[in-house]
Amino acid sequence: MNSLGQLFKVTSFGESHGAYVGCIIEGCPAGLMIDANAIQLMVNKRRTNQNFHSSARNEEDRVQIISGVFEGQTIGSPIVILIQNQDAKSEDYKILKNIYRPGHADYSYQIKYGIRDYRGGGRSSIRITAPMVAAGEVANQLLQHSIHLQVKSYVSAIGEVALPLKYEVDLSQIDASPLRCPSFEISALMHEEISKAKSDGDTLGGAISCKIVGLPSGFGEPVYGKLQAMLASAMMNINTAKAFEYGLGIASASIRGSKNNDNFKMYNGEIVPASNKHGGILGGISTGEDICFTVYFKPISSIQQVQTTIDEKGNEVELNVGGRHDVCAIPRAVPIVEAYTNIVLADLYLHSRLNTL
Amino acid sequence: MNSLGQLFKVTSFGESHGAYVGCIIEGCPAGLMIDANAIQLMVNKRRTNQNFHSSARNEEDRVQIISGVFEGQTIGSPIVILIQNQDAKSEDYKILKNIYRPGHADYSYQIKYGIRDYRGGGRSSIRITAPMVAAGEVANQLLQHSIHLQVKSYVSAIGEVALPLKYEVDLSQIDASPLRCPSFEISALMHEEISKAKSDGDTLGGAISCKIVGLPSGFGEPVYGKLQAMLASAMMNINTAKAFEYGLGIASASIRGSKNNDNFKMYNGEIVPASNKHGGILGGISTGEDICFTVYFKPISSIQQVQTTIDEKGNEVELNVGGRHDVCAIPRAVPIVEAYTNIVLADLYLHSRLNTL
Amino acid sequence: MNSLGQLFKVTSFGESHGAYVGCIIEGCPAGLMIDANAIQLMVNKRRTNQNFHSSARNEEDRVQIISGVFEGQTIGSPIVILIQNQDAKSEDYKILKNIYRPGHADYSYQIKYGIRDYRGGGRSSIRITAPMVAAGEVANQLLQHSIHLQVKSYVSAIGEVALPLKYEVDLSQIDASPLRCPSFEISALMHEEISKAKSDGDTLGGAISCKIVGLPSGFGEPVYGKLQAMLASAMMNINTAKAFEYGLGIASASIRGSKNNDNFKMYNGEIVPASNKHGGILGGISTGEDICFTVYFKPISSIQQVQTTIDEKGNEVELNVGGRHDVCAIPRAVPIVEAYTNIVLADLYLHSRLNTL
Amino acid sequence: MNSLGQLFKVTSFGESHGAYVGCIIEGCPAGLMIDANAIQLMVNKRRTNQNFHSSARNEEDRVQIISGVFEGQTIGSPIVILIQNQDAKSEDYKILKNIYRPGHADYSYQIKYGIRDYRGGGRSSIRITAPMVAAGEVANQLLQHSIHLQVKSYVSAIGEVALPLKYEVDLSQIDASPLRCPSFEISALMHEEISKAKSDGDTLGGAISCKIVGLPSGFGEPVYGKLQAMLASAMMNINTAKAFEYGLGIASASIRGSKNNDNFKMYNGEIVPASNKHGGILGGISTGEDICFTVYFKPISSIQQVQTTIDEKGNEVELNVGGRHDVCAIPRAVPIVEAYTNIVLADLYLHSRLNTL
Repeated sequence: MNSLGQLFKVTSFGESHGAYVGCIIEGCPAGLMIDANAIQLMVNKRRTNQNFHSSARNEEDRVQIISGVFEGQTIGSPIVILIQNQDAKSEDYKILKNIYRPGHADYSYQIKYGIRDYRGGGRSSIRITAPMVAAGEVANQLLQHSIHLQVKSYVSAIGEVALPLKYEVDLSQIDASPLRCPSFEISALMHEEISKAKSDGDTLGGAISCKIVGLPSGFGEPVYGKLQAMLASAMMNINTAKAFEYGLGIASASIRGSKNNDNFKMYNGEIVPASNKHGGILGGISTGEDICFTVYFKPISSIQQVQTTIDEKGNEVELNVGGRHDVCAIPRAVPIVEAYTNIVLADLYLHSRLNTL
Repeated sequence: MNSLGQLFKVTSFGESHGAYVGCIIEGCPAGLMIDANAIQLMVNKRRTNQNFHSSARNEEDRVQIISGVFEGQTIGSPIVILIQNQDAKSEDYKILKNIYRPGHADYSYQIKYGIRDYRGGGRSSIRITAPMVAAGEVANQLLQHSIHLQVKSYVSAIGEVALPLKYEVDLSQIDASPLRCPSFEISALMHEEISKAKSDGDTLGGAISCKIVGLPSGFGEPVYGKLQAMLASAMMNINTAKAFEYGLGIASASIRGSKNNDNFKMYNGEIVPASNKHGGILGGISTGEDICFTVYFKPISSIQQVQTTIDEKGNEVELNVGGRHDVCAIPRAVPIVEAYTNIVLADLYLHSRLNTL
Repeated sequence: MNSLGQLFKVTSFGESHGAYVGCIIEGCPAGLMIDANAIQLMVNKRRTNQNFHSSARNEEDRVQIISGVFEGQTIGSPIVILIQNQDAKSEDYKILKNIYRPGHADYSYQIKYGIRDYRGGGRSSIRITAPMVAAGEVANQLLQHSIHLQVKSYVSAIGEVALPLKYEVDLSQIDASPLRCPSFEISALMHEEISKAKSDGDTLGGAISCKIVGLPSGFGEPVYGKLQAMLASAMMNINTAKAFEYGLGIASASIRGSKNNDNFKMYNGEIVPASNKHGGILGGISTGEDICFTVYFKPISSIQQVQTTIDEKGNEVELNVGGRHDVCAIPRAVPIVEAYTNIVLADLYLHSRLNTL
Repeated sequence: MNSLGQLFKVTSFGESHGAYVGCIIEGCPAGLMIDANAIQLMVNKRRTNQNFHSSARNEEDRVQIISGVFEGQTIGSPIVILIQNQDAKSEDYKILKNIYRPGHADYSYQIKYGIRDYRGGGRSSIRITAPMVAAGEVANQLLQHSIHLQVKSYVSAIGEVALPLKYEVDLSQIDASPLRCPSFEISALMHEEISKAKSDGDTLGGAISCKIVGLPSGFGEPVYGKLQAMLASAMMNINTAKAFEYGLGIASASIRGSKNNDNFKMYNGEIVPASNKHGGILGGISTGEDICFTVYFKPISSIQQVQTTIDEKGNEVELNVGGRHDVCAIPRAVPIVEAYTNIVLADLYLHSRLNTL
């Protein structure tokens, strides 16, 4: 239960303040040229301390590939990625050793395991996604080798500020915004929203949408590896995710069948769906149309306000979670959503090579 | 990819018009008394032809347990459940043999596999969930043996008619309604909504909510078997599911951290969350509080209207999907949601037995 | 732990005297024409009551394929194979209900599970291999579709009668012998050996060798799915197997490296091993040379003699296992060895499709 | 296919001359005190350069645990073990870059993957077992926590020198011999055998036996996770293994049932087998009696003699594998056999916790 994927399988390890966080990639075919630089750039996109509203922990996040790649190419062996934890200030967490922080995993880990690494959230920290982002880029490079697809995520809501419902996203504008929201105007409003929360010592959640363009039909494994289920599972495993929808999503529940169906038509000599209300997936298998899904995240639990909670001995305590925490982590989660999507797709790509004789 | 669960693992097999649909349950500990009658009753709840607005296919759905149970008790061997397909009228489907029905899986299966069983939707039919409901009841019986929990699902929306946002559900009222909606008034409105759609030859989707009461803390496997991810994965594998949310769900994305956190408090000498905005899960692990999630489903694709689509040779065809189809399958999906939830929980229960020394 | 294989995966179910024994095949690519007749013939080779020295239980062993095959072709869905238990005489076993038979699994199953199906050995019976033989033939048909290999097993020893060490096997002579031993002379001696054991109310073990001809190089997954390990695992899971060796086997342990190495040479423009002391496998991966391995089996435990043992309450009992038992099951195990080998190879074939880009 | 075990699962990574070799342990319950010193000592037992007859590569093999252990205790997270490759002299291998060494995996890796790390055998090197030995010691510590068993391996043959067939092994004498053979006399003969082979520039294989004392009944998962199959699979995955037998092994194939059966008897108020011809396993499940198995290994392929072979272009070449190689690696493989056995048993121990309600 530490892995994403089955055939392209990424297993995570490490704790927030341990020596390293890392992952092991199994199933990547031999002969793939690895662009290590692209991997580092992608990991950098997830780093903290990128701008004023995120955590002050300053990690270099240098990616080391210690196995499975020889002279720049994969050799069919497991690929292990390490990232050192350099700026962990564990002493900051000593006062939290016996306290259950509201909204955090302290309590449930303690009950489940009878022990927990309390330093920086330990295993439950978002930090463990750093090497997974690296793995996602390996997945992307594998996919790009044979398929010209594009996986792009963007911030579609922060707090109460959201992109309009039918906003036509220009994917090329995402990286122009420090908040990774493709609309200049909405991005500015989000910025304000964050500033206000910051000055209140509060935190914000939001939503990330992801668009997959160019995925061929045939991805997804019925009946319990449906593409939407694989994506939902990956996304709901991201820290603080609370909801997932794809295509028309929740809205599809209230419209009628006659309004929801997409007929088929001929296009350039090919049979294709005439529209894309189905969200690019039918029967759990991609149809060749764009896939769009959205993940909703709750706000970060570490607020800069005094909270009343309980320590392990049952005493009530007043807690002001100091530490170095984000006000809003949604923009930093954009590469995570992309990475997990790429891992799911790389896995289903390998599956799809076994569909037929 | 035909299975739900890892340690309590249910693998599905069969096609809509094949000889049988069935499943195999692996990992059920030995010594469990199986209440076969309760299994049959649960499967009956999912049957078609229960009332005027559902499919006319009349299957007896008699559950046969052909292995793994000896003198009423499990013996640690795989438990195989068979349900015969008796009322399959395959000739009705011959005209669909070469046609891609809008909204159905015909096209994507054909592209993926180069062949498909076109009869009654073949492998993509909702019919394959019948034995899974039986397996869900086995999971329930395993859980009940050691935990006094309650897993109850109900219809929370049909088309445009939905339960009010903060409706206090009385779980005991669910089965009183033929539509499995715990509110008498809303149930009546839903009934009307279905009648209107039926008279228009149209179909409806909706939403099912599920409440888990009495689950101990410690269920859920970080970091990629988080309880919410396991549930989301199971639910998004149900035919026509488009969205999943738990706890405050989508709403949590727009509120602030200070409003979203639940402090801890002492209660009867136990440390417990003081409120349940977190939805019973922190860090992917149950906290002991109630878990509530909702699944949203698109309307059924087989409408009683003429649709224009394409056959395998690329010819445009006018299609009126005759057959014997539901107007709205949401009430029938209630036991499916419950069954899948029970399977997820039984799986995590076995995992939880391995957490500590 | 009820399965052989990972990508081509066969999961066994059923007990000796249950309604059915069967299996489910997952991962068989779509579009394979299934020769159901060949499957039935292979299963028949494993049947009891084929000649005087084997069990009197008379099962028709009619193979039913109830899913995954449509109009004679696989469709990418799980293939379920059922074989009804028709001639089970469970009343014969009632006297064994509370007795631990020497050499059988009664005791260890009871200790492990606290319950057992005592009828005909229940889950531990060799009968559960019948549908696995059917699955092996499906594996064979998948392999034959793309590779012209030959997997042939034969009896190389029964009791004290064995083929000479460097006997040159003529694979075409195997089926000419009712004992499936390719040497006419040795076959006759084996026949005598069995007759003598039968007249003494005793039983015999023996050995089965298997030759794989025509397997391309590249089969086997380092470092923990080595071809020899996959074969050893499959074979040691056959009831009564006690030893496995491949290539020179045990003999290789006592010779020197200079005598054991095979140089490489050019042959028809291809680089190939110049000899085959390595047994067709290097580093866990097939080299293209013939693979030969041998499995050794202990004698059947159900002898026709009085034995002293203990019942569940700890009382000493005199036991004469009546029932309808083989004197020597080795010839009947020949198709089992072949089937398991084919399943291993089909699995590794699918793996090999994912080795490179 | 890089893993041993399912519930206690150890995944190997790394190449002989990469930055690190290592492994990841999943499934170890939380709360286990880890004795890091004992781990290091066990890894030291496998090191090269321990005496004159083994490889000159001098690795410190310092074990680093970089995750999953907090304040000396397991926390339920993956445990990653790293061992740096410090003394790899890759330049020695450059001349082998394009040559297929006889008896080695060069050829089969190249054919399978189209690329290989030729340095020191790359992924196929025995060096990758170093961290697996560490993992085996973690498994042992887990087992010792609840079961007082003893897993002891010893050298039972080197070349043509072997322990007598019914030699009564005194397990306490194993470590007294530098060759890990419990007989002082035989050990001396083995020493001579190695010296002779060394002076001839040749290499030797041999056999390792393993005794498991104190394993409770109930270990082993029918029907495809039989204890003997799990052990055989693990052992046949060790480099150069050619055969596996347990209990009477090959000898059991030629004796009669009446001679092979073990009756049950009462002993100290417990039902137990009256003798142990069955080798401690019936029906794939441990019976509580001692388990003894033997693994046979071919000689090392890197001999100090000129061999004729082929390079990648098809040219014949004279090859004298220089490098720093063992004459006989059998004594060094003793901790490997022990480690793999402990991993198998730890895995089956976790399985056994799920057998019953």
